[in-house]
Amino acid sequence: MTGFSFTLNATDGRARTGVIQTPRGEIRTPAFMPVGTAATVKAMLPESVRATGADILLGNTYHLMLRPGAERIARLGGLHRFMNWDRPILTDSGGFQVMSLAELRKLTEEGVTFASHVDGSRHFLSPETSMEIQRLLGSDIVMAFDECPALPATHERQAEAMRLSMRWAQRSRDAFGDRPGHALFGIMQGGVERDLREESAEALRRIGFDGYAIGGLAVGEGQEAMFGVLDYATDLLPEDQPRYLMGVGKPDDIVGAVQRGVDMMDCVLPSRSGRTGQAWTRRGQVNIKNARHADDPRPLDEHCTCPACTGYSRAYLHHVFRAGEMISGMLLTWHNLHYYQEIMQGMRDAIAGGTLDAWVATFHAQRAEGDIPPL
Amino acid sequence: MTGFSFTLNATDGRARTGVIQTPRGEIRTPAFMPVGTAATVKAMLPESVRATGADILLGNTYHLMLRPGAERIARLGGLHRFMNWDRPILTDSGGFQVMSLAELRKLTEEGVTFASHVDGSRHFLSPETSMEIQRLLGSDIVMAFDECPALPATHERQAEAMRLSMRWAQRSRDAFGDRPGHALFGIMQGGVERDLREESAEALRRIGFDGYAIGGLAVGEGQEAMFGVLDYATDLLPEDQPRYLMGVGKPDDIVGAVQRGVDMMDCVLPSRSGRTGQAWTRRGQVNIKNARHADDPRPLDEHCTCPACTGYSRAYLHHVFRAGEMISGMLLTWHNLHYYQEIMQGMRDAIAGGTLDAWVATFHAQRAEGDIPPL
Repeated sequence: MTGFSFTLNATDGRARTGVIQTPRGEIRTPAFMPVGTAATVKAMLPESVRATGADILLGNTYHLMLRPGAERIARLGGLHRFMNWDRPILTDSGGFQVMSLAELRKLTEEGVTFASHVDGSRHFLSPETSMEIQRLLGSDIVMAFDECPALPATHERQAEAMRLSMRWAQRSRDAFGDRPGHALFGIMQGGVERDLREESAEALRRIGFDGYAIGGLAVGEGQEAMFGVLDYATDLLPEDQPRYLMGVGKPDDIVGAVQRGVDMMDCVLPSRSGRTGQAWTRRGQVNIKNARHADDPRPLDEHCTCPACTGYSRAYLHHVFRAGEMISGMLLTWHNLHYYQEIMQGMRDAIAGGTLDAWVATFHAQRAEGDIPPL
Repeated sequence: MTGFSFTLNATDGRARTGVIQTPRGEIRTPAFMPVGTAATVKAMLPESVRATGADILLGNTYHLMLRPGAERIARLGGLHRFMNWDRPILTDSGGFQVMSLAELRKLTEEGVTFASHVDGSRHFLSPETSMEIQRLLGSDIVMAFDECPALPATHERQAEAMRLSMRWAQRSRDAFGDRPGHALFGIMQGGVERDLREESAEALRRIGFDGYAIGGLAVGEGQEAMFGVLDYATDLLPEDQPRYLMGVGKPDDIVGAVQRGVDMMDCVLPSRSGRTGQAWTRRGQVNIKNARHADDPRPLDEHCTCPACTGYSRAYLHHVFRAGEMISGMLLTWHNLHYYQEIMQGMRDAIAGGTLDAWVATFHAQRAEGDIPPL
């Protein structure tokens, strides 16, 4: 596809590192994509998100179509210009959030009718309308419209949802058409059922996409079950195209996914955690509101080069969190996104150097130490 | 005083421009001081505050003594290090906010006993404890402890409060002692009563301070009454020392105060307005939540060089405000602080060039035009 390509540079075990080329810049893989739900990565300016090392953001079709509206964003020059981010943007299809957020949902073969959680207005999403909305937004990587059933779900329910998603994948492909410089990714479904995952992967490969996502994980099944699927699922997808694991995850989820051949991930966790006083560091999770930090002059992580760690003590971060100051969310989100990107860079380097096992061993050893003890 | 000095460089009418030298850097006057109440200028990183052109911040003794506590800040290396701002800081004395925020106040000749609005704990503020707290914070410019009576107040009540403040000013001077590189400012009181202002100024000059504040204004008396006091009050103060008008104000208040010989001001307005969707521009106030901005691709002010105006449309600012996103407060606060500092720089240049009248005429003419009409 003109202007969009994936180059695999090195592998280490099943882990891969490479580059996705797009007209808006390259995406180094494995890549972590911060989530900019409503045209902003919460508590961050876009230049700060870039400074953490992010090559690409994720935007939410469901949120943006409801507010401020896809047509409005198109009139204003597209999502990149609207939110002041000129690098690649991936948009989800809206399918997942219709199922988790919208009200009065009615699902048919044709698509989903629902009521906005913002103002109750009625909307319709289908493969065709999702493709049109993502086109209006100007997304660089467009996701096929799918259905992700709530868990727990029977094999029958999973099969039904997966097969509907595959029919929608074909309609998404047809509606997307040929858009040079823009990519369409299909989404594998099937929950934790291996036969369904195989059937789904085969259906997607038959249709043909620019990249392949693994959907329907990170929805409550637990890390062991997720890794269990990834143990075989990535091998079901084409080797020469990017593989995107949706909605993942905690740092150790991300590391395990990359070890299993995943190239791209997204998650609200680092930004959401930042706003609730949770920091992620090499040594695990730090709850900054804990009273033990009130007098601690040390940074969150003495080895971290983010603004939160180079400019402020734990005592300060504790104070501003307790006082409800916005700088708390601003600094902790920056730190978390910085740490996530540091993990990605570390893994990219390790895979390129053939030393991922050692890198992962160190990653787990540092976490096992736990946070620094109180002074 | 070693390490602290004021140099008057030029005057234009009663307006003055100069430089306050401190060991932590110079303060160009007239100066606007953003307010960092709880060790943060809300919604801003300190490097961003500096980027707007601020030479000095104001910290609130009352807030900081209650949370996180002055002793704690001292143990952590002082307020500058705590909040990551290495330039000058002025702290108020706590007197004003004890009167406006604290509960169960009891005022005696000795000082004020009160209950914290945060947790109900009992505290005592007096000239001596205020000096000690401001010393612990490491403030560069310390304010004398005063009483500012609520308005409306009779001449008798104003006289009583002013005379108590003058006795406290002497005690503040005595308690402050000799602290090279740190300045102590006295605060003139007397409300809108000229005889009391004269008596207060004389008392302060007799004691002798490194600078002089005009207190008891911007407390609801209105701009006309405030300017009425400033018409004579600045002339009651030494010409060769800085004059600080506390708690002012809107852009036109600031301009009128500088025209009347004021060198320094502070106000929460630009940052507070920014968090409530109010922007200040050359053409007056803009309420970004107004529906007229929803589709407007233009910046707040096409001549403004702040990040909000160079990176974002009114439509975006409207959207993120409506969506309750933190970036709304971050961008509008930055814009407002930038605009305030632009006013100060404009006046400093105009005073130096002897063209303040023309600058002020343009300032008012642009405001009279009002905001740009809808497209």
